[in-house]
Amino acid sequence: MSSRPAALLDLDGTLVDSVYHHVVAWQDALREVGHEIPAVRIHAGIGMGGDRLLPWLLGGHDADGTEEAADGHRRRFLARADDLRPTPGARELLEDLRVREVPFVIATSAGEEEREALLAVLGEPDLPLAGAGEHDSKPSPETLIAACGQLGVTPDHAVLVGDSPWDAIAARRTGVRPIGVRCGGFGDEVLREAGVTRIVDHPRELIGQL
Amino acid sequence: MSSRPAALLDLDGTLVDSVYHHVVAWQDALREVGHEIPAVRIHAGIGMGGDRLLPWLLGGHDADGTEEAADGHRRRFLARADDLRPTPGARELLEDLRVREVPFVIATSAGEEEREALLAVLGEPDLPLAGAGEHDSKPSPETLIAACGQLGVTPDHAVLVGDSPWDAIAARRTGVRPIGVRCGGFGDEVLREAGVTRIVDHPRELIGQL
Repeated sequence: MSSRPAALLDLDGTLVDSVYHHVVAWQDALREVGHEIPAVRIHAGIGMGGDRLLPWLLGGHDADGTEEAADGHRRRFLARADDLRPTPGARELLEDLRVREVPFVIATSAGEEEREALLAVLGEPDLPLAGAGEHDSKPSPETLIAACGQLGVTPDHAVLVGDSPWDAIAARRTGVRPIGVRCGGFGDEVLREAGVTRIVDHPRELIGQL
Repeated sequence: MSSRPAALLDLDGTLVDSVYHHVVAWQDALREVGHEIPAVRIHAGIGMGGDRLLPWLLGGHDADGTEEAADGHRRRFLARADDLRPTPGARELLEDLRVREVPFVIATSAGEEEREALLAVLGEPDLPLAGAGEHDSKPSPETLIAACGQLGVTPDHAVLVGDSPWDAIAARRTGVRPIGVRCGGFGDEVLREAGVTRIVDHPRELIGQL
């Protein structure tokens, strides 16, 4: 294992300005199967994998509707994919990491279709991905452990850039240092409680810093 | 002037779960006139009147597009009005204020069409309104000064329940005590910096408390 510093990058909400789209898509999809959930509550769960979000929002009840809701969310989110944009400085940060030869990998819990749509927004269909879909989603540490393994670094020589507290919790569980970006709309207090010690507005502020 | 305690209630985002709809509607409308604005930046400005939001987001440039953007936002927001819902406990809080004979008035910066749509969501088309549309919008104090006058109370005998920092700033400027609700998605730090000392999740927690 190398001790070279490396960057693990969350995708959804961190590199792509997608959180508010997700909130509205989930709210509509959940309403369609009979659940009225306040937007702010849905927002608080964004950043977990969809497999974790629904039980978190709904508790034990109506497990039957969850597959339909997940499907409704995916359809709505993908239907609006053309309206998504990179977060400020996201593309430039990727270029900066390449130029400075900082090893990096995308560590995402997004499903395949959503992931492809998000990578298309960045104009980067071939970004290196850490075993998405094969691991328990964040806040479980599996994805980040795989990401470190893929880059050949130990967790204490990696940082995770993420917009949600679930990123930070996964990072802490892995032993990776979390850096927070505000572009997903999570409050500083929420990020700090999850273990983030450094918070910036968006990826642009991290250019030259990782 | 009476010294009876009174409640001034923000509408949009406080009694109706509308903030995320506004963010997406503004983002789409602004894109249509050539401005790509991150969702989190738009969110931060929600709660100001539309007349103030656009200059705040765009600075001085392209004042020509602002009317078109405001119109595009209004159309998009109203088109989705059927998907809006009251925030948790909003209707019950109104009933509680009536039962306990607490004087109250809606203090909103929303335009007429949006206001009517929001009142319809609450099933309360005839709620008392403090001179909306006739005053400088929040964070200016005019609407709250009018609200106190309408209820016959001095500002120090009124509270304002609001979800945004702009509500709190308007309240402080008026001498009214602001109470924050988290259901608009603003972080506690943002609300506290704006002068809020008491923050609850949503209107339900204020039943029996005003």
